[in-house]
Amino acid sequence: MTTNRRILLKSRPEGLPGPQNFEHVEEDLQDPPADHILVRNIFLSLDPAIRSWMDDVESYFPPIGIGEPIRSTTVGQVVKSNHPDFKEGQYVLGLNGWEEYSITPGAGFTNVIDETIVPSISNYLSVLGAVGLTSYFGLLDVGKPKEGETVLVSAAAGAVGSLVGQIAKIKGCRAVGIAGSQEKCDWITGELGFDAAFNYKECNGVAELSAKMKETCPDGVDIYFENVGGDMLEAALDNMNEFGRIPVCGLISIYNETEPQPGPTNLWQLVINSLRVEGLLIKNYLDRFPEGALQMATWLGEGIVCVGDGPPDSACLPPCPADCSIVPDGQVNVTDLLALLAGWGSTGSCDMAPPGGDGTINVTDLLALLAAWGPCP
Amino acid sequence: MTTNRRILLKSRPEGLPGPQNFEHVEEDLQDPPADHILVRNIFLSLDPAIRSWMDDVESYFPPIGIGEPIRSTTVGQVVKSNHPDFKEGQYVLGLNGWEEYSITPGAGFTNVIDETIVPSISNYLSVLGAVGLTSYFGLLDVGKPKEGETVLVSAAAGAVGSLVGQIAKIKGCRAVGIAGSQEKCDWITGELGFDAAFNYKECNGVAELSAKMKETCPDGVDIYFENVGGDMLEAALDNMNEFGRIPVCGLISIYNETEPQPGPTNLWQLVINSLRVEGLLIKNYLDRFPEGALQMATWLGEGIVCVGDGPPDSACLPPCPADCSIVPDGQVNVTDLLALLAGWGSTGSCDMAPPGGDGTINVTDLLALLAAWGPCP
Repeated sequence: MTTNRRILLKSRPEGLPGPQNFEHVEEDLQDPPADHILVRNIFLSLDPAIRSWMDDVESYFPPIGIGEPIRSTTVGQVVKSNHPDFKEGQYVLGLNGWEEYSITPGAGFTNVIDETIVPSISNYLSVLGAVGLTSYFGLLDVGKPKEGETVLVSAAAGAVGSLVGQIAKIKGCRAVGIAGSQEKCDWITGELGFDAAFNYKECNGVAELSAKMKETCPDGVDIYFENVGGDMLEAALDNMNEFGRIPVCGLISIYNETEPQPGPTNLWQLVINSLRVEGLLIKNYLDRFPEGALQMATWLGEGIVCVGDGPPDSACLPPCPADCSIVPDGQVNVTDLLALLAGWGSTGSCDMAPPGGDGTINVTDLLALLAAWGPCP
Repeated sequence: MTTNRRILLKSRPEGLPGPQNFEHVEEDLQDPPADHILVRNIFLSLDPAIRSWMDDVESYFPPIGIGEPIRSTTVGQVVKSNHPDFKEGQYVLGLNGWEEYSITPGAGFTNVIDETIVPSISNYLSVLGAVGLTSYFGLLDVGKPKEGETVLVSAAAGAVGSLVGQIAKIKGCRAVGIAGSQEKCDWITGELGFDAAFNYKECNGVAELSAKMKETCPDGVDIYFENVGGDMLEAALDNMNEFGRIPVCGLISIYNETEPQPGPTNLWQLVINSLRVEGLLIKNYLDRFPEGALQMATWLGEGIVCVGDGPPDSACLPPCPADCSIVPDGQVNVTDLLALLAGWGSTGSCDMAPPGGDGTINVTDLLALLAAWGPCP
């Protein structure tokens, strides 16, 4: 009998998650019931959104139940199929969990992927997956960029932000990024082709953030791609041009807050400048995934979108060692992982997920390492 | 030589405006220069937006200058024309001021109106004017209502709100209004055909507002037409359905605030429910005014949109006498006017402008009365 190693949610985090919130179990693997498939997870995605699913709050998904595996998008291979739409050996993208094997109905979020159009199936978790398609549909469908416009991106060295800026450049826009270190700024302007960037950690409060935006966006901001919220949103509102658009992808400044945080004081800007603010979830675009994935795969193949290795000295998270080696080699050590979890969405300390815009990790490695979890260093 | 009576901005209000902020002058009337016209103002519109123009803040219009007449939309008649597009005797709608005569270039906001399609030319300041067209384009173009949806309207007994609810009904939606007295609620449900209404003054804080919304909108809110901001917006965000729309017409809860007011704490709802929040200014629709005005005139003629007389006991403003007789008889006394000005946009005390959705006033009467301004009672 095969053993399935799984990481379950043991208790709900208050604020930052820690090892006390997770449990590692080994269970005998069951056969899938009728109309279900058994998937061996090969890569999983570490997304800041997972943090919000750990809270006992009704959201676009129900919360992860206590005792359930941590929900996560994975790429895997069908090991056994009791569903007519899936064959053994096919690769699938699905919403599964932090576990070696998942049993899943052949519906909803599970889709067969074409492994021949990408360098690695892990690309389906980044450029061709939720991260890439959030960037693609968020910028193009919600933001509707026009050539020559200025696109300001928060968490710009993060998984989504780094792609948003690159797509903005493809569409003939000026891309300006906000990131949390000079190295990240250098990386997105040097490697990724952003036109300008600034380190928000050098700004103290809304006024300084706003001044930096004005300096880096002298013609104002037409699209502000929002991953952060809080002071960043307030400063951006002050810099928006008439008919500006604000796709809201995430609000990582609040994810680990236990008390409600007030919104921006300057919503009057919405009226003055006829602004549009629009929240987006990638699940709204399920029926257009093939279109987005094909376009992203094409850009990836042409080399005009890169996932990148992250900035050379990627001190992405405050407590994280300089060698934050989660990406791109697919290895992780527990200290790094805990640092990553601790940094998810914390205000002003981490942009978002690992640098480099990939965020994928080898499931076997992760589970092996998580099994050894001890107290946070 | 004809005398022009004018009300000028003498100083900028801090918080609530009072008589000390205005000056009444009588000046000799000048001839219009080339390409300008001389308009005798007959009706002017008292809009909450005027309050925001009194502040020294760059907005969608520049602030009213000290010593300039209070800016206001008026309907008037061309007395002398030095512009090829205007003839003497024609009626025009324009952005002029609180003065008997205005000299204005024959461009931008000044348009000849067709007085034959309406019961009164004052309708161009209400149903066919900024108020009516803000309702029309705000609900239809920004809100995009679908049959069977629920439209929640704040300041629903106000000039804009009362029309928004009626247009929502025409489009087959369920219209629910929020107003500041039981009389107003009875008026909008009884006279105007709203399906439900509640008095926000009976609600204490966001949680109670939100509960009342849930009670009156059991299927959730698809469109929240925003005139108010503050707690009302926060409560509405908690009640929005997936893909809900929030046209932002005004934020009267903040107009008289001298300190920045925090925004809603629950912007995360934008992401969870893929909401769209969009500010709107009627000037964005200048080229479509004829379309909107014709449709509103048609509905007015068919009797399916009514401007109404307001609720019978229209204690619209806290310090206002029970007989708040600004509308519909076109008379005003100074006490009432000051009460009206004091109530513009104050938090939780006044819906918006006079009840009844008209908001027009006879210029001659107003100026005669303003000339007698004394200290606020």
